[in-house]
Amino acid sequence: MSAMSALIVYCTVPDQDVADRLARRLVAERLAACVNRITGVVSTYAWQGEIRTDAELLLLIKTTRERFDALRACIVELHPYELPEIVAVDVALGLPDYLAWIESATA
Amino acid sequence: MSAMSALIVYCTVPDQDVADRLARRLVAERLAACVNRITGVVSTYAWQGEIRTDAELLLLIKTTRERFDALRACIVELHPYELPEIVAVDVALGLPDYLAWIESATA
Amino acid sequence: MSAMSALIVYCTVPDQDVADRLARRLVAERLAACVNRITGVVSTYAWQGEIRTDAELLLLIKTTRERFDALRACIVELHPYELPEIVAVDVALGLPDYLAWIESATA
Repeated sequence: MSAMSALIVYCTVPDQDVADRLARRLVAERLAACVNRITGVVSTYAWQGEIRTDAELLLLIKTTRERFDALRACIVELHPYELPEIVAVDVALGLPDYLAWIESATA
Repeated sequence: MSAMSALIVYCTVPDQDVADRLARRLVAERLAACVNRITGVVSTYAWQGEIRTDAELLLLIKTTRERFDALRACIVELHPYELPEIVAVDVALGLPDYLAWIESATA
Repeated sequence: MSAMSALIVYCTVPDQDVADRLARRLVAERLAACVNRITGVVSTYAWQGEIRTDAELLLLIKTTRERFDALRACIVELHPYELPEIVAVDVALGLPDYLAWIESATA
């Protein structure tokens, strides 16, 4: 697999329960090879004219471009936010066997 | 907005106080749509011939290419380090409405 | 240095001891300018038909494309996993002096 097909998707969630449900579902449905949850995140943003600070977790989701649309649809379906953060960055280089594992785990 | 205009900017800071001030200022001045603070980070680097390990926080800042120069200038102005880490990666794909929110929040 | 040569490499490790050894070795051998360790990460993945959840740390390693092959080889040599996660994303933009520091620290 060319590195260029692998993606790291960033998605913030409100709590461990949503993190756990999303991570398990995405991996079980082969939409993601793995999901790293980063705990203790604090997010600052403006909403309806106010600056807000919320406690969140950040999910780093390893997948492929081929699976991104289905992954995004699954997150939108399960996520409690009206407008969840779903942004993806391209993997440029990697360990070939690990990149091949991402591909096989999401095939 | 094309995904290609959105950026995730990485910036490490020494403590919660600097994290809070930077996050609020960047969002209030519409230089960033949102800032995720990751706490409990440990950074290892070489400085003047010694290997050092410092406790830090990592800021993940969502913005656009159009706002990057002004965002960088604001960080340099507020940041206590002589040489702050400011590196940005391109967002390749995302949830269209979220990408549109990044753009409108920094317009 | 053009921003395009700088990389952020993602690598997960099982514990602080491996994190510390890898971070110090990569910096001491000028394979990385700096390594941020994110603690308290929880990783979900499928392995031999089972969904697993492990406690890990995530290393964010700043280096250059020129040093990536040597960095990858060093991680593979030191890492306890059979198949460590090593994926890298391109830095698109940054603070020029910081990007120059990444290059000089890995020259």
